[in-house]
Amino acid sequence: MAEKKEKTKIDSSAEIADKLTNLGEAMIKEINANQSPSFETRLRGRGNVIYDEAIGCLRLGEKNETRTFVNVGQAKKFMQTVAVANKCKKFLKEGAHTSIRGLFYQLKFSLGEDLDEELFSEQSESNPLIEDLEVTLDVKREDLNLNTDRKGVVAGPMTLKDKFGGGEVEIDCTKQGRSGWMIPSDVDNGMEFKSVDADYVLVVEKDAIWQRLNEERYWEKENCILITPKGQASRGCRRLIRRLANKKLPIITFCDCDAWGWYIYWAIKTGSMNLAYLANDISTPEARFVGVTMSDIKKYDFLEKLTIKAKDIDVKRAQEMLDYPWISRHKDWTRELKMVLDTKKKIEQDALQGPRLSFVGEYLREKIGKKEFLS
Amino acid sequence: MAEKKEKTKIDSSAEIADKLTNLGEAMIKEINANQSPSFETRLRGRGNVIYDEAIGCLRLGEKNETRTFVNVGQAKKFMQTVAVANKCKKFLKEGAHTSIRGLFYQLKFSLGEDLDEELFSEQSESNPLIEDLEVTLDVKREDLNLNTDRKGVVAGPMTLKDKFGGGEVEIDCTKQGRSGWMIPSDVDNGMEFKSVDADYVLVVEKDAIWQRLNEERYWEKENCILITPKGQASRGCRRLIRRLANKKLPIITFCDCDAWGWYIYWAIKTGSMNLAYLANDISTPEARFVGVTMSDIKKYDFLEKLTIKAKDIDVKRAQEMLDYPWISRHKDWTRELKMVLDTKKKIEQDALQGPRLSFVGEYLREKIGKKEFLS
Repeated sequence: MAEKKEKTKIDSSAEIADKLTNLGEAMIKEINANQSPSFETRLRGRGNVIYDEAIGCLRLGEKNETRTFVNVGQAKKFMQTVAVANKCKKFLKEGAHTSIRGLFYQLKFSLGEDLDEELFSEQSESNPLIEDLEVTLDVKREDLNLNTDRKGVVAGPMTLKDKFGGGEVEIDCTKQGRSGWMIPSDVDNGMEFKSVDADYVLVVEKDAIWQRLNEERYWEKENCILITPKGQASRGCRRLIRRLANKKLPIITFCDCDAWGWYIYWAIKTGSMNLAYLANDISTPEARFVGVTMSDIKKYDFLEKLTIKAKDIDVKRAQEMLDYPWISRHKDWTRELKMVLDTKKKIEQDALQGPRLSFVGEYLREKIGKKEFLS
Repeated sequence: MAEKKEKTKIDSSAEIADKLTNLGEAMIKEINANQSPSFETRLRGRGNVIYDEAIGCLRLGEKNETRTFVNVGQAKKFMQTVAVANKCKKFLKEGAHTSIRGLFYQLKFSLGEDLDEELFSEQSESNPLIEDLEVTLDVKREDLNLNTDRKGVVAGPMTLKDKFGGGEVEIDCTKQGRSGWMIPSDVDNGMEFKSVDADYVLVVEKDAIWQRLNEERYWEKENCILITPKGQASRGCRRLIRRLANKKLPIITFCDCDAWGWYIYWAIKTGSMNLAYLANDISTPEARFVGVTMSDIKKYDFLEKLTIKAKDIDVKRAQEMLDYPWISRHKDWTRELKMVLDTKKKIEQDALQGPRLSFVGEYLREKIGKKEFLS
């Protein structure tokens, strides 16, 4: 399913530009027929986010919405959306990328003061105008030449072909030294896997732990691809994980033992509310969780004295996660979350360095070897 | 001066381990002589931070402090510092790196509960125990195999040799595609410049603007090294800039036109209060500033309508910068800062994309060509 979906997503920029042209032409038709120009999008509020059991990810439901120009409440936003579409078509034609902020200034230059700056803040969780276009055209904003915040690093037996800025380079992820290769915003357009020779993908929440494992060449010894999203995974990082899962590589996730760390796993696995409109383009239901778990405290004696006290906000977040039905349907996770509520403790990944720096790798080898996963 | 200083800093790990051994042996000597073990460090409070006009950077003054074990107020911290030194020696011997957090857990494992977690928070601006060691031994924490947060990216005509984790790779910074090479925590130990064939270094505050310039291969067309610190520069990024300046490359900085962007420049140039103890190891007094400046509003007509309103906090920060004597001694900067106070406006780098995405590069070419810098 995901494999099939992916293929439809990697359109060339010409095809995406065509989609924008078609959108505009449909509006012109409406205008010529003395109708209000309009387009269809889908409701993206929580009321239209559903957990799709068959796929195992959060996606939008079927509630549609029509945006029309001749509507006092929508006219201004409608005009702005059309202006955004127009700019994106220009970017695609020029083969040039920019950020949401760059787009904002292009529009401000053309449209003047009449523009809501907050709509175009990178920090904003929802940029409704651009989301409208993504949903309506069934493309990602990265396909519209809009860069998103990039974050995360990768190393391991994988070579990528990167066509970019008129050039093409090969990125050998075994030759990135202490740094690794930074995961870009767009891992689809112009990016191809030349070769992926790994047995699995290990996703490590914290950069510090990634560096530890990179230093001992864990990816070489275990023949895996070593990724850190550096906390919550960026869109590009989630998409890369999805693409690697499409290659039938097991995805194993390793996070802090607290609600925040665990939610990093869940966002990779099922996607998140805010990005439900991207559904299985960026979610990886196949992902499994190797640790750190509350149960590890019993398994590894020394961990008890390296736990730290969970704060009220940590406990509250664990309770919230218990309330997500797609999480609490997993008995193992319910047990783990309840242990947080009971013991009010948490464990950082970093604690596994307590006995010796190399213990992080030993822990992973043991648990991955025995397939001790939560899923 | 800086060149000379650098050479003394790139000690091998054996030499650094010797420094730690000497520290311990001196203490044993004191104990054997029935004296309290002690070591000398320097006061790092603001009262002992001075602006060194001759070098052009912030550094510590001459006020020393002696830490002694037999002192009710110091005994615990003293013991912890010795424990930190002991662990760092072990890390050096093992050739393994960790983070401050990893160090914390190693100590907690050995010492038990009796440890102040906050002292070892990565977020903490001062980790007094480790700073004590850095100052006392005249090394950087990176030399003690302690990784710091890494941030920032580089591309351009430069090849690095990276000896790491038992391997050695060459990083060709012209072949890093859309991502660039991530600047690591430690750019000294095991890192060498194999070749640097650039005319200058351009430091670009924002990653989005860096990506714009990378896409149009600005570094190739202008034969420069293109760095983004991604906001305030990390220790590793500042150190890389310092090392490139040692190679006589001009350092040109390009930031937002507001107090925060400007202070990114100043932190690169003179160093910062908190890191004054590293002085000219991480400051680059030669750095110059190409923009964005308030004066640009007059020069580029379209910018006026792309300015945004400075918030109270922006204006307050500009006032604070005027109060730093090492900044206000520059007439140009005083003028710029006063324009912020008068007009209450600011301009983002991104605004230069208003007329066309390629304008950012055009702006830089023009101003760098004409050497229109503030220094």
